[in-house]
Amino acid sequence: MAERSTPNSGRKAVVLLSGGLDSATTLYAAHRQGYVPHCLIFRYGQRHQKETRQAVAVARTAGCGYQILKIILPWQGSSLLNKKSPLPRREKIDLQEIPSTYVPGRNIIFLSFAVSYAEAIGASAVFIGANAIDYSGYPDCRPEFFQSFQETLRRGTKAGVNGKAIKILTPLVNLTKAQIIRLGMKLGVPYELTWSCYQGGRKPCGTCDSCVLRKKGFAAVGMADPAG
Amino acid sequence: MAERSTPNSGRKAVVLLSGGLDSATTLYAAHRQGYVPHCLIFRYGQRHQKETRQAVAVARTAGCGYQILKIILPWQGSSLLNKKSPLPRREKIDLQEIPSTYVPGRNIIFLSFAVSYAEAIGASAVFIGANAIDYSGYPDCRPEFFQSFQETLRRGTKAGVNGKAIKILTPLVNLTKAQIIRLGMKLGVPYELTWSCYQGGRKPCGTCDSCVLRKKGFAAVGMADPAG
Repeated sequence: MAERSTPNSGRKAVVLLSGGLDSATTLYAAHRQGYVPHCLIFRYGQRHQKETRQAVAVARTAGCGYQILKIILPWQGSSLLNKKSPLPRREKIDLQEIPSTYVPGRNIIFLSFAVSYAEAIGASAVFIGANAIDYSGYPDCRPEFFQSFQETLRRGTKAGVNGKAIKILTPLVNLTKAQIIRLGMKLGVPYELTWSCYQGGRKPCGTCDSCVLRKKGFAAVGMADPAG
Repeated sequence: MAERSTPNSGRKAVVLLSGGLDSATTLYAAHRQGYVPHCLIFRYGQRHQKETRQAVAVARTAGCGYQILKIILPWQGSSLLNKKSPLPRREKIDLQEIPSTYVPGRNIIFLSFAVSYAEAIGASAVFIGANAIDYSGYPDCRPEFFQSFQETLRRGTKAGVNGKAIKILTPLVNLTKAQIIRLGMKLGVPYELTWSCYQGGRKPCGTCDSCVLRKKGFAAVGMADPAG
């Protein structure tokens, strides 16, 4: 990892790590801000396990500790979890609509566990690589959601009541995909290890929403995607 | 179950069911309000499984469907989850302090799953039997926490963005334990099946915080506790 700046030197932070480009960049950004990152990786019934394998590879390369948490939602409700549902292609997504890959309550669940983990290990912040610019329209990726969740923590956790609510930090939320990639290149993020595709084959499908957003980002930076 | 009133006739609701007195009463209150309850029961590494067994017995007696969700937090941080930690006795609890049985982020995690479940099955409400009068001082049992969580749902879920946020309903939040028991008796709650003790023996220990609050409630109503 690149050199740290110092403002939060040695303070622990929990980083939600999915194996994708955004969360890997967020991990390196947390370290850059002086935090000691503890990665939290979820297996939540994704269509494939490639993503979580890559998350582990990223955490190891970064030299960070990690926890894998397996939570199986016995209910369906998302094409991201149900192999029988077709995945929407980017060009077919109505950007006014929330797509079928939306997982009900996903970021609320992830953040809740991250906050519980943070309280248990004495971390002062939780980092999440959500982005509300080049994104899929999920409501739980927008700044107004995170602001409200932060207020909920002030009121509903021991740390919050003691005036030290765990901070929810979203360093990428207002960046374009190209800006995220430029930041990551500067921080030395191993993008060759990251996996963004909703499918789990040997190579990214190139057509799902996540692939299209990633391609657009590397094209804007004028770089070949090191993950191929 | 007792007769329903009609205002929400046939609408689904998710009810968080722990096996204790409060959540059982909440289940019957949800039914009384006209909802079709779907119970959500957690195994989250409690010191014993008696509680969840009793939750299943209550759901079955009420004739409601239920889901059991197993989530193991790999981190500790609560005497409620760690058999090696002593449980505090009620008289030793400083009521200005949050006790050691506090589980970091527990109700946020439970509610997050309940909301995800509710969105997936098309339920319009989530019931939780939290109480901020005769309670243990957990910050995530207070009305101001639930109000903020509700706002978070308005902003961070598909239903919320569409103006139909899942309602978080806390019918017991401002009742004393005695008032809760009186309500439950009227609704026919099978209190003989409920288990409140933090320990998991054959009989309640009678000294933990939860036992003491329960005893106080039955004494105020002038009734013997049917669970013995």
